[in-house]
Amino acid sequence: MDRLEQQMQFILEVDKLKKITRQTYLADGSRKEDDADHSWHLALMCALLSEHANEPIDVLKTMKMVLIHDIVEIDAGDTYAYDNSGNETKRAREEKAADRIFHLLPADQAEEMRSLWEEFEAADTPESKFANTLDKVQPLMLNDASGGISWQEHKVREEQVRSRNVTTKDGSKNLWDYADGLIRKNVENGNLK
Amino acid sequence: MDRLEQQMQFILEVDKLKKITRQTYLADGSRKEDDADHSWHLALMCALLSEHANEPIDVLKTMKMVLIHDIVEIDAGDTYAYDNSGNETKRAREEKAADRIFHLLPADQAEEMRSLWEEFEAADTPESKFANTLDKVQPLMLNDASGGISWQEHKVREEQVRSRNVTTKDGSKNLWDYADGLIRKNVENGNLK
Repeated sequence: MDRLEQQMQFILEVDKLKKITRQTYLADGSRKEDDADHSWHLALMCALLSEHANEPIDVLKTMKMVLIHDIVEIDAGDTYAYDNSGNETKRAREEKAADRIFHLLPADQAEEMRSLWEEFEAADTPESKFANTLDKVQPLMLNDASGGISWQEHKVREEQVRSRNVTTKDGSKNLWDYADGLIRKNVENGNLK
Repeated sequence: MDRLEQQMQFILEVDKLKKITRQTYLADGSRKEDDADHSWHLALMCALLSEHANEPIDVLKTMKMVLIHDIVEIDAGDTYAYDNSGNETKRAREEKAADRIFHLLPADQAEEMRSLWEEFEAADTPESKFANTLDKVQPLMLNDASGGISWQEHKVREEQVRSRNVTTKDGSKNLWDYADGLIRKNVENGNLK
């Protein structure tokens, strides 16, 4: 198949990311955001906040990483952060999805995207640490703005949020300080138990 | 105000981009896409298709450009491509929106983002030509996939699509050939009159 045809087939397939609904509400609480909305938000945050990374990062690489970090959810679904049983099977479901979806691309790009996704999951490079920090801070910001609707719906407690955020400081001390402030504020105002 | 606070204020404000509905349907026709969905799709296309640009482009700059190209619609609304009266007042409404929204950022970043938006609008550099090509090809791809629902709803005719796409070849001859093929196909199968 022609290279451009193959690329466009992938680009059309990942349109389905817009149909994966997250548990996080928009800032105004009107609806839950979808995975493409979320990935757009992270990419823009990456463009604007890279100066706060603990270590220098390759911004283009990190932006690509956040743009594709949730694509496996097209097959594997969105596993809610505080769903313990779902999280046990998450890795296997997502591996299978990565095999299918990224390999719609020409081999060189399939390799690049798959390896960016693996790097994001491993969170052991400056870029992937920062990308994971953004992925944690963005829903905290939206939960704060919406008055904690999603926390209340799922009866999430402070210790769960803190335990999910133990590595958030690894990507950016500044962003963790900001996030920590949001957690404290929401415990004080009762939005987070 | 603290620099990070100012950046986060902008990042929270632009969450509203997720509430701006476009006239283009998702590939499966289930709903219209929102501006954040669309911007995510363009950024990913930019990451994967830059090899098809007519001239070499700065990929990071082009990705930032497509991530913010529709942000003015938060205040100005989405003006449908084939709405003639709306398009007469579009520029003035969007200028005002750019003044307000980008200037939530620290001055250096406000300047950078505003100037990326102006460059996108002028479409006179390799990056902005390519970004505009992506912005035209993505809805053609989705209209084709959804069976032309949006064209039919708005009684759009082939000559309108062609007139809107006279500069699409300027960013990428390859992508224009692909888009031209989609237009021909949809005229043949009757989805586009």
